[in-house]
Amino acid sequence: MIDITLPDGTIKTFEDGTTPMGVAKSISEGFARNVISAKFNKETIETSTPLYSSGSLVLYTWSNDEGKKAFWHSTSHVLAQALEELYPGIKLSIGPAIENGFYYDVDFGDHTISEKDFKSIENKMLEIARGKHDFKMRAVTKDEALSLYKSQNNEYKVELIENLEDGTITFCDHSTFTDLCRGGHIPNTGIIKAIKIMSVAGAYWRGDENNKQLTRIYGISFPKQKELTEYLHLLEEAKKRDHRKLGKELELFTFSQKVGQGLPLWLPKGAALRERLENFLKAAQKKAGYEMVITPHIAQKELYVTSGHFAKYGEDSFQPIHTPNEGEEFLLKPMNCPHHCEIYNAKPFSYKELPKRFAEFGTVYRYEQSGELHGLTRVRGFTQDDAHIFCTPDQLDKEFKDVIDLVLYVFGSLGFENFKAQVSLRDPENPDKYIGSDENWKKAEDAILSAAIDKGLDYVVETGEAAFYGPKLDFMVKDALGRNWQLGTIQVDYNLPERFDLTYKGSDNELHRPVMIHRAPFGSMERFIAILLEHTGGNFPLWLMPEQAIILSLSEKYEKYSEKVLSLLENHEIRALVDNRNETIGKKIREAEMNKIPFMIIIGENEESENMISVRKHGGEDLGMISVDEFSEIVTNEVNKTLKTFK
Amino acid sequence: MIDITLPDGTIKTFEDGTTPMGVAKSISEGFARNVISAKFNKETIETSTPLYSSGSLVLYTWSNDEGKKAFWHSTSHVLAQALEELYPGIKLSIGPAIENGFYYDVDFGDHTISEKDFKSIENKMLEIARGKHDFKMRAVTKDEALSLYKSQNNEYKVELIENLEDGTITFCDHSTFTDLCRGGHIPNTGIIKAIKIMSVAGAYWRGDENNKQLTRIYGISFPKQKELTEYLHLLEEAKKRDHRKLGKELELFTFSQKVGQGLPLWLPKGAALRERLENFLKAAQKKAGYEMVITPHIAQKELYVTSGHFAKYGEDSFQPIHTPNEGEEFLLKPMNCPHHCEIYNAKPFSYKELPKRFAEFGTVYRYEQSGELHGLTRVRGFTQDDAHIFCTPDQLDKEFKDVIDLVLYVFGSLGFENFKAQVSLRDPENPDKYIGSDENWKKAEDAILSAAIDKGLDYVVETGEAAFYGPKLDFMVKDALGRNWQLGTIQVDYNLPERFDLTYKGSDNELHRPVMIHRAPFGSMERFIAILLEHTGGNFPLWLMPEQAIILSLSEKYEKYSEKVLSLLENHEIRALVDNRNETIGKKIREAEMNKIPFMIIIGENEESENMISVRKHGGEDLGMISVDEFSEIVTNEVNKTLKTFK
Repeated sequence: MIDITLPDGTIKTFEDGTTPMGVAKSISEGFARNVISAKFNKETIETSTPLYSSGSLVLYTWSNDEGKKAFWHSTSHVLAQALEELYPGIKLSIGPAIENGFYYDVDFGDHTISEKDFKSIENKMLEIARGKHDFKMRAVTKDEALSLYKSQNNEYKVELIENLEDGTITFCDHSTFTDLCRGGHIPNTGIIKAIKIMSVAGAYWRGDENNKQLTRIYGISFPKQKELTEYLHLLEEAKKRDHRKLGKELELFTFSQKVGQGLPLWLPKGAALRERLENFLKAAQKKAGYEMVITPHIAQKELYVTSGHFAKYGEDSFQPIHTPNEGEEFLLKPMNCPHHCEIYNAKPFSYKELPKRFAEFGTVYRYEQSGELHGLTRVRGFTQDDAHIFCTPDQLDKEFKDVIDLVLYVFGSLGFENFKAQVSLRDPENPDKYIGSDENWKKAEDAILSAAIDKGLDYVVETGEAAFYGPKLDFMVKDALGRNWQLGTIQVDYNLPERFDLTYKGSDNELHRPVMIHRAPFGSMERFIAILLEHTGGNFPLWLMPEQAIILSLSEKYEKYSEKVLSLLENHEIRALVDNRNETIGKKIREAEMNKIPFMIIIGENEESENMISVRKHGGEDLGMISVDEFSEIVTNEVNKTLKTFK
Repeated sequence: MIDITLPDGTIKTFEDGTTPMGVAKSISEGFARNVISAKFNKETIETSTPLYSSGSLVLYTWSNDEGKKAFWHSTSHVLAQALEELYPGIKLSIGPAIENGFYYDVDFGDHTISEKDFKSIENKMLEIARGKHDFKMRAVTKDEALSLYKSQNNEYKVELIENLEDGTITFCDHSTFTDLCRGGHIPNTGIIKAIKIMSVAGAYWRGDENNKQLTRIYGISFPKQKELTEYLHLLEEAKKRDHRKLGKELELFTFSQKVGQGLPLWLPKGAALRERLENFLKAAQKKAGYEMVITPHIAQKELYVTSGHFAKYGEDSFQPIHTPNEGEEFLLKPMNCPHHCEIYNAKPFSYKELPKRFAEFGTVYRYEQSGELHGLTRVRGFTQDDAHIFCTPDQLDKEFKDVIDLVLYVFGSLGFENFKAQVSLRDPENPDKYIGSDENWKKAEDAILSAAIDKGLDYVVETGEAAFYGPKLDFMVKDALGRNWQLGTIQVDYNLPERFDLTYKGSDNELHRPVMIHRAPFGSMERFIAILLEHTGGNFPLWLMPEQAIILSLSEKYEKYSEKVLSLLENHEIRALVDNRNETIGKKIREAEMNKIPFMIIIGENEESENMISVRKHGGEDLGMISVDEFSEIVTNEVNKTLKTFK
């Protein structure tokens, strides 16, 4: 008999040779029907693998990442079988699961695979899947393994096998197909109900450009047709919402080859949008007692040696800037914190003057390999909505709560309603890994946890995930497409106050170390705007829109009246444009829709004679003929739905 | 007989051997009394030098820079004589006139000169001056010259003489004193009425630190005692108004050794002040049709190769920034213009869409030797209130006038009332030196001149002073201490549009080159704020003050009422502070005066019971007990005196 420990801690006793599926059935038949993969003592196994020793077992369904991985990896076997049947003589190499789906790298010889082949590959795969073939693992000797692939002249598999450490080599069989494989499959092919071949690309064998280029076929599969449809729809949406595409269409930002990759240039509409976001945060920060500072974008290397950033990042960063004669070395600023520490150090503070909250929209530069760059989400220069709070340890609790209020205000005003917090604490078993006294760590961790509870956050605690210099709280935000983004960090720091010898005079007249909080609700203006673009598809909250309304005149005759309406709108502080071109109203509306302008104001003879405007919302809703005052009220109400006053 | 051409073009005939003083007397006896120096055919001469050939003559009085130079240089001879009499055995080296006064470098042997010796030196000099000794030049042979100084063991003069080209060597005699000298003296020592020894410093012989260190004695002299008194008062004022001192006292900015020299850190009050200035200009620019853009602080070297900046400044600048693996070379941005050209190039424009006016508060970095750095006026990183206008050649005229309007609005709002313009045109005799067609140059120069006339500017034209890429207009502003500062540049550019291949589609459907205007009313935020600090002594225009009012309670009893007043002031958008400390009202007023806060609001029992405030202006004026509403009106009126709405 063996003892099987389940994830909830219960231990059940089974006969030797019981399979994970057997264990699943002992829990419930319904559950067992969904179980597709398993992990036994940290090793991924099949649901049919017999167990001969006690241990802990995790059972996976499609809804687990591990379950999806087994599902997709198994589908890659089906792909390989389909390809062999469709294109005899091809040579298979490797076929792993990836984040979304799977691929297989294949040597097609002279044959070229293109998009027009996808349908027949999918059909062949579905035909195989419907055969409900079991995936079965079997151990083979190295010689057996080599002889199979040598007989097929498959130098890739031969090389893989030759490089394997001696030990158990396994094959996986299903239907008439056999593949070299370490395991981790679903019970049978019949579970695979929907398959899509996504794309084809070249890929060097083992990623080495000196090797032969193979054909990589990407695919994805699902247990239900509906899930595939949804996935493809999401993909389509994500493509439409790609911030690089929208940023170009809405004329928000651009890149220039001459200026350099990963260094965005903000066009007028984008710069105005960014300024609105910055002013929004500045106003809230002012109320919350922050003071703005401005620091340079370079500093002497010595500053970052003091802060420790040079030791940590120096070699992989933009290299030092030398001066012509004086042997000085400067670095592009990768972080604002050392600069703010020097501002704190510019004059002595007493405990009565704390907390000091220094904020800056500070542009920092960090080197990223050009291959890693991506639109505004991965850049080489970006502007942090940075602030550093210098306070006494006793003030930490209130400061932390206030920062959470500010972050929640920011998320709320921008339509991010779905988020979780992650609290990272130190590993209590390794106190030596961390800087700062036990007492201060306790204060800080208590402050974070009590703030998370107090503010009703949906949070998880990750013990041991704190940085060596302090615990932190990160916000994970889910966007409209269900993707998660890390936004908003609040981090306690005991390290920089030490390194910069920061002090304040306490009520005891002695010098003490302040605590520092790093925080950035947006994180980076660039990345935030990219996420906001993808979250809203360019339909920003009304208060943030580059243009809130566009005046579409029915003909050039109404130019004067449209100018009058424009100036009335400006008096109401509504950002509006005029389209007086000699074009049909239908074309003007279509273009305004494409430009995502929230309100279209249509004016013609009726409107002018009655001194009114006809309003159509983006998307089509007709608000009828109303006065500019009434319209202004609608805009104000709409703005106030998202944009509240802070505190 | 010789013909003497005077600066106004008149030609007069004189006998051979007539002196400049003779010429002066022929004009008027009164004028001649003021003439102290002369220039004949570009050579500085004495007023007593006989003229034996025809040529052009300029006569200088104290009010000319050349006159002052002769005056101060002559005084350095008097200083040298005084020192020789007071400290026999010293060795003189050189004694030139400088911008303000003169100095003499002297080897005092073992003797040390300090501030306590200044009085006796001044007295000895005045005693010599009163002797009304004529300055007389005489030619000597090299041997004669050498033998004099060899007999004095004066190795400095000997070295000077040995290095002289063979030719005329001259001595200047006055009283019993003789000095090696090229000439340019006033008629006699009697004109020197007031003398001040300013300071003493070490100076290496010939500026080479391997040489012996001499003692440099700085002095200044005037033809009237009153002028010395005024000068010393101005110096005192300038010292009080030194922006480095005020910047520290008012907590506007600081420098950090670790961040680096010449890289200012803006403290909260300074950052807020700067933001107010920026918002002020932004609002005016918005009305004037500018659009804000944002560009990175680095770019690939290639960008500046294209713009030509690298060829011109590359070697003397901050050196290139390399990346770890990819062989890229970036430079810190020394100018915003190439970036704005790339923004212009991001999409095609038609003539209907021009002008485009891209504005940015762009921080640029330019290397300066550490010895050249000075507070905020000479830094290594600064923020330009930069904008570039891209227009058709026909739009240049209007654009130039509009820019002048904006610049005049900026100067007026900041209390600079005294300024001149300098128009720099090309040298019509060297058209090949310049880029761009004759036709376009004519358009641009006409546009600038007509704008200068149209706007009623007090301007001078400098022919041949244009840059090779276009003509320009610079503003020279006189500050409260009478010092001139160059502020505000408007510059036409035909070069960058070529280099960046900028185009627009004309009404003829062909591609044309736009013209570019560079302009910056402030120039640099750092330098402008420094000048404004020295101009106003920290008493900024009310709209700009960090704090407009401070509430001083007579005792802590009135804390609640002072909070109420503060919140009323905030409702009126008046920036105010509260001083509720347990200190005497006298001390609170003194500190508020020192902090230059324009209005002190004093509250005690009377004020609270009557719901009023007592107001005292900075400097002492008592406005009596009034309501907050009345006070707000006073503030608004005061603000509106300088800050008008633009257009």
